[in-house]
Amino acid sequence: MYNRSYNFSAGPATMPVPVLEEIRDEMLNYRGSGMSVMEMSHRSKVFQEIYDNAEADLRKLMGIPENYKVLFIQGGATLQFAMIPMNLMKNGVADYIVTGSWSDKAFKEAKKYGDVQAIATSKDRNYSYIPDCSDLPIRENADYVYICENETIHGTTFQQLPNTKGKILVSDQSSMFLSKPCNVADYGMIYGGVQKNIGPAGMAIVIIREDLIRTDLDPKIPVYMRYDTHAENGSMYNTPNCWGIYCCGKVFRYLLDNGGLEAMAEYNERKAKVLYDFLDESKMFNGTVDKEFRSLMNIPFVTESKELDAEVVAATKKAGFDNLKGHKSVGGLRASTYNAMPIEGVEALVECLKKFEAEHK
Amino acid sequence: MYNRSYNFSAGPATMPVPVLEEIRDEMLNYRGSGMSVMEMSHRSKVFQEIYDNAEADLRKLMGIPENYKVLFIQGGATLQFAMIPMNLMKNGVADYIVTGSWSDKAFKEAKKYGDVQAIATSKDRNYSYIPDCSDLPIRENADYVYICENETIHGTTFQQLPNTKGKILVSDQSSMFLSKPCNVADYGMIYGGVQKNIGPAGMAIVIIREDLIRTDLDPKIPVYMRYDTHAENGSMYNTPNCWGIYCCGKVFRYLLDNGGLEAMAEYNERKAKVLYDFLDESKMFNGTVDKEFRSLMNIPFVTESKELDAEVVAATKKAGFDNLKGHKSVGGLRASTYNAMPIEGVEALVECLKKFEAEHK
Repeated sequence: MYNRSYNFSAGPATMPVPVLEEIRDEMLNYRGSGMSVMEMSHRSKVFQEIYDNAEADLRKLMGIPENYKVLFIQGGATLQFAMIPMNLMKNGVADYIVTGSWSDKAFKEAKKYGDVQAIATSKDRNYSYIPDCSDLPIRENADYVYICENETIHGTTFQQLPNTKGKILVSDQSSMFLSKPCNVADYGMIYGGVQKNIGPAGMAIVIIREDLIRTDLDPKIPVYMRYDTHAENGSMYNTPNCWGIYCCGKVFRYLLDNGGLEAMAEYNERKAKVLYDFLDESKMFNGTVDKEFRSLMNIPFVTESKELDAEVVAATKKAGFDNLKGHKSVGGLRASTYNAMPIEGVEALVECLKKFEAEHK
Repeated sequence: MYNRSYNFSAGPATMPVPVLEEIRDEMLNYRGSGMSVMEMSHRSKVFQEIYDNAEADLRKLMGIPENYKVLFIQGGATLQFAMIPMNLMKNGVADYIVTGSWSDKAFKEAKKYGDVQAIATSKDRNYSYIPDCSDLPIRENADYVYICENETIHGTTFQQLPNTKGKILVSDQSSMFLSKPCNVADYGMIYGGVQKNIGPAGMAIVIIREDLIRTDLDPKIPVYMRYDTHAENGSMYNTPNCWGIYCCGKVFRYLLDNGGLEAMAEYNERKAKVLYDFLDESKMFNGTVDKEFRSLMNIPFVTESKELDAEVVAATKKAGFDNLKGHKSVGGLRASTYNAMPIEGVEALVECLKKFEAEHK
């Protein structure tokens, strides 16, 4: 009806059609307010209601305990890479588990602010697996242990959380946010850019245990970069990304109306299986990740050569699939199969890949 | 047709209806791309074109010289308050002109990072005027002079730029961005949150002279807070607020198609005159700003008492006008008459106020 393409982008990424339709229909006059959500004062009653509903729905969806704050902060995960050490370090010590590009970026940024070590890494095999995290050399005085729970570029995911030996766990969930149930109480802080599995780019969501929000920070930390600034002002110390909050709120509501995170997990598993089963059978295509650590969200795969990879990308593009080119640090192709990617899209992609393989034997 | 209200919000604020219509119509499938702009990879050709057009149109609109960079950065003006001293201080010295809440916030944030002085202020009369800036005690080693060129809350505007005695001028133009022609070469840097006179909240635009973008900064500055990070990566070091860039780009195009900034200035003057003329005649309402420094964008006014102010606000709300309550630091009422507010809205408001005055003699 809208002639939409199957968009396998790693982010910004596909969103649910019913959500986009609602947003479209509310564009000129949101529910009788006489204005678009983009035009609303963030201090108005009508916007506060949008905000409150978004937060309440996210809390319901994830089962966020009452002693956790939900914050909506601009600057994406990149700003969080600096905010986390600035705000969570008391001893100036943090231990990072480096499993791909994103945890490595976070690690490098954190090193500016304290004694930061990589206590485990899978760099030796181009981040194609998750290292054993059952007994890591976590330091006695570490303020936190950091992971990127799903690496968007390398396509790995933690199957179980690391043993942090009592230390606080901080997790970047950007590319797996809301893809399956999650026990928030296992974490000190969960955060993610919303532009992968939720809504439009321009915002990160931070879910942080209240006792970790410090007010005795170094006074030289920019006011915007203090969690207490956002926590004490309901994420409205300054004008927030109102549009992002509105769109994400719509997605939270949509997920609640469609079975919540249990249903998403079941669907995402079925979806990823379609592609992984094909990759395991194919003689031309190979997944790049050790089977037990494969992500349900980001599925990188390669052929025997760069030239053939490029031919496949061109063939998928021609067949109407978008954004399948792999990231340069892995090469090949990557299919991101976030919540809003329909299983029909993955099935159609597999058909296209099968056809390509048959024609290029 | 859409039953839109006259929305006098100080920001986020009213946007042009034709722009909102285009955005609505492109929601499910942007120009045959098969996806919404919210779903596009920021690395895709289709989004890069949106970005390039937005920048090119802004350059045309403002006549931005080639040796200035245009950056789109999240975090609003609040993040800029810290980024400016962090990036522009070489000597660690800056002089601020404090003419209202926003320049005061910028001043207080900057003090964290160096020897920062307020070299002029209008605080003595609750920021109701702009101090004489023809011969200020600007320090020999000042890295820059800072102004907020239009104070959104207090409703003042600089009629002429301060004599900076050769120092770089940094101007927060948030609430007057694109409201009239501007000679960019007079400034070292112009910036503003876009949510007042342009588009949806969640982004600031920075226009900065290239030679002021330093690469030899303190390595402890967060990577996101360095102008060189954004300048070297075409504002895409990380995922930008793509939606904000898209919507702002639509507004730039709309302004170009409607006579550019000269036409806007003429229209804004006509519009503001309708309300100011009324305030000058009224026996009930008084503008709070010295006439020669009145803003064309934000028009605060009061009655003799808080009780009566509240009655007027309620009456305007009942008559279908939105967001006229003044900011608590000035009280009374405030009408923001940004580019997209039609003159019919201001005329209707004046009729409403006249009626109120007649009925409450």
